[in-house]
Amino acid sequence: MTDLRPSREHWPVARAWNFSAGPATLPLPVLERARAELLELPGAGASVLEISHRSRAFEAVIEEAEANLRALLGVPDTHHVLFLQGGASLQFAMAPMNLLGSGAAAEYVLTGSWSRRALAEAERLGAARVAWDGAEGGYTAVPDLGSLELDPGAAYLHVTSNETIQGVQLPDGFEPRGGAPLVCDASSDFLSRPLPVERYGLLYAGAQKNAGPAGLTIVLIRQDLLERIPEGLPTMLDYRTHVEHRSLYNTPPTFAIYVFLLVTRWLRDEVGGLEAMRERNREKAALLYEAIDASEGFYRGHATPEARSLMNVTFRLPSEELERAFVAEAREAGLLELAGHRSVGGIRASIYNAMPLEGVRALRAFMDDFRARRA
Amino acid sequence: MTDLRPSREHWPVARAWNFSAGPATLPLPVLERARAELLELPGAGASVLEISHRSRAFEAVIEEAEANLRALLGVPDTHHVLFLQGGASLQFAMAPMNLLGSGAAAEYVLTGSWSRRALAEAERLGAARVAWDGAEGGYTAVPDLGSLELDPGAAYLHVTSNETIQGVQLPDGFEPRGGAPLVCDASSDFLSRPLPVERYGLLYAGAQKNAGPAGLTIVLIRQDLLERIPEGLPTMLDYRTHVEHRSLYNTPPTFAIYVFLLVTRWLRDEVGGLEAMRERNREKAALLYEAIDASEGFYRGHATPEARSLMNVTFRLPSEELERAFVAEAREAGLLELAGHRSVGGIRASIYNAMPLEGVRALRAFMDDFRARRA
Repeated sequence: MTDLRPSREHWPVARAWNFSAGPATLPLPVLERARAELLELPGAGASVLEISHRSRAFEAVIEEAEANLRALLGVPDTHHVLFLQGGASLQFAMAPMNLLGSGAAAEYVLTGSWSRRALAEAERLGAARVAWDGAEGGYTAVPDLGSLELDPGAAYLHVTSNETIQGVQLPDGFEPRGGAPLVCDASSDFLSRPLPVERYGLLYAGAQKNAGPAGLTIVLIRQDLLERIPEGLPTMLDYRTHVEHRSLYNTPPTFAIYVFLLVTRWLRDEVGGLEAMRERNREKAALLYEAIDASEGFYRGHATPEARSLMNVTFRLPSEELERAFVAEAREAGLLELAGHRSVGGIRASIYNAMPLEGVRALRAFMDDFRARRA
Repeated sequence: MTDLRPSREHWPVARAWNFSAGPATLPLPVLERARAELLELPGAGASVLEISHRSRAFEAVIEEAEANLRALLGVPDTHHVLFLQGGASLQFAMAPMNLLGSGAAAEYVLTGSWSRRALAEAERLGAARVAWDGAEGGYTAVPDLGSLELDPGAAYLHVTSNETIQGVQLPDGFEPRGGAPLVCDASSDFLSRPLPVERYGLLYAGAQKNAGPAGLTIVLIRQDLLERIPEGLPTMLDYRTHVEHRSLYNTPPTFAIYVFLLVTRWLRDEVGGLEAMRERNREKAALLYEAIDASEGFYRGHATPEARSLMNVTFRLPSEELERAFVAEAREAGLLELAGHRSVGGIRASIYNAMPLEGVRALRAFMDDFRARRA
């Protein structure tokens, strides 16, 4: 197999095409800007790694980060934007701690490994029940949320918009019935497409797939949900603390917020916004799903066609031996991190926002070549 | 005042001397190495910002980070090393959540603003009482821990080894009597001097003063304390989760851990270990305290001489007007972030490990000059 690494023209060092599920590829212009400013954030006299979170220079960073996010997603004034730590895994606990105070149960839609983890945490902390479970089908499908029988009196309805491990994704503009506040783990498709933010009560996303480095969690929360938070929570785990202090109650992950700012600028200025980002993502995913569909069963997609993720393309080969050969030969060709999650096996290609079309074309060429040689 | 900025020879960009209390100055060789590797961690084919926390390349980072920390501090096998998120502020809650299950009360030594915050969080979550309180003296002193009457049956004794805001620090090798497990917030003097780790049950430190960027919290916990953790805690807030998964239960703050690794290498290879680091820190602090003591009352140190911090040198001038002039003129001269914490006012010079002697000499020269002009 020929070397499929990015051409030196675009990638000045020995970078490969990196299909990691997260932490994941960042836009090259973002990395280059961060590198150029690493010893001094212009005007600050110090690196962004070294400045106080209460300095004017950092205030400018966090304010622009929030403003850009609000503009990109169209976040209404009813919703607060928080920059937190701990990842979605900590949100799995914070959401029920903050929103299950009334004693009403929450409903969970189980579409894969991550929504199961979210449910398990809610069950430790309050009342939670399953609204839909894709386990029997091996988490290959997603429900039609508009036709589910949901409890309008539930404390909230929790969904996972994209399941990184299984590679299934809720469709654009999904809208549950029922009227309970919608809570969404959007970690792995955040900023990959427009979102009707006004429909969400709480939306959270670990940054390390589409939005920035690991160590930053972005939370959108609607004002009226703050009123149901019980008293007595640990200060750091009460959403009101971070709303009142505009994410500066304690030292936030300043560098990760700075890189997130650079990502929002890239989305706005180089991609052209979230509609354009969605088009790019559709084009990239189509290249790989076409290869699967045209492979006469050599590549078997995990997800049903309706549930296919634009972010994580998951598939099997006829044998585990072939899967190991696929991953190893791809690595030799400069295509990294294509092994499926250790819990499900197979192949997974994560093609988040920052993966360029050329990288996906390189993988497509590899898939076609591998099949021609090994089918 | 002449320009006191670092010479271009050592600082290739427009860096100033940055006395921020945290996030704070990092060693220049650390920043330069991070910059050199920002597009590709050697051999990884991607930036350290982009690689999976379960990749071999990152495993090498986190394993070396732990090994270096163990070697520098002499961490015994009885103690686990954890890389967490949320800062000391989250540890203020995690410590009592994990260690107050038996119903016994914890005792808190109050030496300043941070220990008060730690106590407030423990009081929300269980039984806690004050073992010593420096409030009456305005938090200018620290107790002789060896002579305090402590409850040997307490769940733990909590101390704050350095108070960033007041600039008071517990002395080297402090050793409380009583026998309750010692819990220490070491955020602002971690790695600034050798520590008898074997004496500690739990020690935690936000990285952003001496150890790395914001967004990383380093925790040392003794094995036997794990046995008293109650069941039913949120998974992310149970220390056992992170012990069992070696800090990889979920995605850790990978870049911050990488920078921490570079800091440990700098401490070992360029500084020569923690004894040498302590000598440097003593020399730096002495330069400033000498200026205070020789100022005939123009500069009035906040801390009593016995309690003076080697990390944060806090003092007042004869008037707030002079303090504002001091901060503004220092900034003009290239000496940044010298205003005291908003809650106490005055001047604070934070001179953590990474502040070079030259930077402190520049501040000393400024102090002497300012006094000559304005006294």
